[in-house]
Amino acid sequence: MSERDSNETAVRRLRERLGSGNMLPVRRALHALNPAEIASLLASLPPTERNLVWEMVSPEDDGEVLLHLPESIRTGLIRQMDTAELIKAAEELEIDDLADLLEGLPETVTREVLRALDADDRARLEQVLAYEPDTAGGLMNTDTVTVRPDVSLDVVQRYLRLRGEVPTHTDALYVVDRYGAYLGALPLDKILTRAADDLVANVMERETPAIPAGEKEHDVARRFESADLVSAPVVDGKGILVGRITVDDVVDVIRAEGEHNMMSMAGLAEDEDLFAPVRQAALRRGIWLGINLMTAFAAAWVVGRFEATIGEVVALAVLMPVVASMGGIGGSQTLTLMIRSLALGQAGVGNTRLLLRKELSVAAVNGLLWSIVVGAIAAWWFSSLWLALVIALALVVNQVIAAASGVLIPLILKRMGVDPALAGSVVLTTVTDVVGFFALLGLGTVILL
Amino acid sequence: MSERDSNETAVRRLRERLGSGNMLPVRRALHALNPAEIASLLASLPPTERNLVWEMVSPEDDGEVLLHLPESIRTGLIRQMDTAELIKAAEELEIDDLADLLEGLPETVTREVLRALDADDRARLEQVLAYEPDTAGGLMNTDTVTVRPDVSLDVVQRYLRLRGEVPTHTDALYVVDRYGAYLGALPLDKILTRAADDLVANVMERETPAIPAGEKEHDVARRFESADLVSAPVVDGKGILVGRITVDDVVDVIRAEGEHNMMSMAGLAEDEDLFAPVRQAALRRGIWLGINLMTAFAAAWVVGRFEATIGEVVALAVLMPVVASMGGIGGSQTLTLMIRSLALGQAGVGNTRLLLRKELSVAAVNGLLWSIVVGAIAAWWFSSLWLALVIALALVVNQVIAAASGVLIPLILKRMGVDPALAGSVVLTTVTDVVGFFALLGLGTVILL
Repeated sequence: MSERDSNETAVRRLRERLGSGNMLPVRRALHALNPAEIASLLASLPPTERNLVWEMVSPEDDGEVLLHLPESIRTGLIRQMDTAELIKAAEELEIDDLADLLEGLPETVTREVLRALDADDRARLEQVLAYEPDTAGGLMNTDTVTVRPDVSLDVVQRYLRLRGEVPTHTDALYVVDRYGAYLGALPLDKILTRAADDLVANVMERETPAIPAGEKEHDVARRFESADLVSAPVVDGKGILVGRITVDDVVDVIRAEGEHNMMSMAGLAEDEDLFAPVRQAALRRGIWLGINLMTAFAAAWVVGRFEATIGEVVALAVLMPVVASMGGIGGSQTLTLMIRSLALGQAGVGNTRLLLRKELSVAAVNGLLWSIVVGAIAAWWFSSLWLALVIALALVVNQVIAAASGVLIPLILKRMGVDPALAGSVVLTTVTDVVGFFALLGLGTVILL
Repeated sequence: MSERDSNETAVRRLRERLGSGNMLPVRRALHALNPAEIASLLASLPPTERNLVWEMVSPEDDGEVLLHLPESIRTGLIRQMDTAELIKAAEELEIDDLADLLEGLPETVTREVLRALDADDRARLEQVLAYEPDTAGGLMNTDTVTVRPDVSLDVVQRYLRLRGEVPTHTDALYVVDRYGAYLGALPLDKILTRAADDLVANVMERETPAIPAGEKEHDVARRFESADLVSAPVVDGKGILVGRITVDDVVDVIRAEGEHNMMSMAGLAEDEDLFAPVRQAALRRGIWLGINLMTAFAAAWVVGRFEATIGEVVALAVLMPVVASMGGIGGSQTLTLMIRSLALGQAGVGNTRLLLRKELSVAAVNGLLWSIVVGAIAAWWFSSLWLALVIALALVVNQVIAAASGVLIPLILKRMGVDPALAGSVVLTTVTDVVGFFALLGLGTVILL
């Protein structure tokens, strides 16, 4: 399989081969993929074929493949492995990755894996496990290479030759004092480009900030993005160096954050398994449908208040979808913009009034514009200028309320500690449906009857 | 301003100070921020204050700040700068970043900037500009440090000391033959840890793959993610090393891709300016509302076919929002899952039939379950078992059609070359509204009249 082969081609071919029942070429194809590619392949297969392929993955790749899988799929595969296989998989991993893997496992298995490690690794793993998984401490690796400030670059160079290798993604050594307190970073390129007799203290970068172990991974990601970091030191409350975070783990955080908002807005888990078992998928989505049903019945209840009006002017029922849909679309545009800006820390920062003014202006302009169009169509369709007036007014009202809700609902939800991406669209739709139908049918009752 | 100060606090404080009219503390606060933070601050300010703060950014930061801004905001600020200021900003940038910046500029300014560069930089810039911006060539930087395979590490080390520094994010030198053809990578840590008399040829990593300059940035990002790369060499069609891509630029691609899907689903630009001028925002969103209006009128037209039915059984109008909403929610769950999986290359890879079967099963289960609940409520509300049967049947039909549409619409759109994230939800809502109303009112006509 050549370098240029995309995942799509790989999956297509592999599935054909799986279908043919001849397993040898499947094994060979698998062998050419890296763990991330194997993970992506597994994610695009239904359960039966997924298990078949998983059995064929070579044991030394198991750990890395599991790591690259979304948790929803990982848990299922781990459940099929016995403890010996798990320990084997665990041994191939770096400490931070191992900690990630252990989070999803039952307590008993975790203890077994810990027992199988040597004392050194166990101590380091326990250190990482002591921090919350979504903090810098949970994200970090403990494999830092440290030097003292009072030695020359030449000494550092000889020490490294003696060591023979450094951990993956080491772009800098860290300078610590005799108590292990972090002093600064010594990038590898500085060791190579500065004079051999320069002291570490004179060459090291003091401005490279250390990340507190308790910092949230969201903030860590923003820090990496804004300062273009490749790796960064992590310190505990006393300034003691406890580990380092590398950009590959931050990339995963950024990817997950991007998907979180989009998936949440549809009530899905961000790592939703494409081939989740029907019962599991139906349960999770059923709950979401149930919540939305309350919304729908709120809207239906409003319509129910106006049964008499509809009975007399059926055209109002015909125009109901128009008002509801336009309000929903307008509101969700504002909502989506707000959810993105909240995640970036650019909304809700003392600029709410200005934002509200802007969104209301946009909604008023579009509300007026489209109400003329819709009014004209309604007038022509039902030959009634009064009906045209009713739908036009309802449309403007709903558009403006939708914009205000789009700005305020996510801010209120956030203050209540509720994820705006998850709950925002349900609440918003309730508002736009209820307001839209109330405006249309209420105005209809007053003006047309 | 301490290290821990979040963007939110910074913005809040700065806005207070702007309000007070005292500019000195604003200047001082700005000085403590890095270009990415200044960019984020600018994005959260309305136009007037944004321009005020932009004037205060020190000229040597201008280039970096512009780069970190979404294009929608960048263009506005650049329009206010004169060519001299632009050339000054451009001078501080790396070649790949400069190329990004130039994309948005008018041809005349680009030519001015090119003329202001020295011959060397101009040649390098023109090389990058020759590639499409969304390819590896457009993403790359030309500042590679190269060595020959037949020298010893000691010689490399002396060469680097002579050089005195290497470009930012250099984690590896690249090994090329006398014609400039790429042979392999020589990571800095290898130079430091291997024996000084080892030859480059024996130490270099031949398996580090070079990225073809024409590869799409989406594929480049997937490659970085799956192989955990920090930087990678870029080669032209003949295998000649032309540049390198660093992870910081890839992080931007990943962030943008994550936002693209979410923003597109609401018909917004992925870099939508929170404080876009009202006219501009109203125009873009107005178009989206207009497109959705056609959808809404398609639904209204279906309802219009059944005016007589509604006139006799007004309860059907009351239940219309329930069928439309449940279909829309169910369909958009499937659609969102598909859009995510298509972006990851995990859907549409010969697994469509299986996926369809799974989604239809989920929809059938939930459709049946919730149709019983909705039917029961309708029976109690309107005291009619026949009406309960109608809404229950309509709900199941719509749920199943919604799931099928959620799987098939994005696949069809993609094959047509239309972005499923952009057009998917409009088309889907049209289907679920039309089918939902047709099923409810059609069954109502047959069963209830």
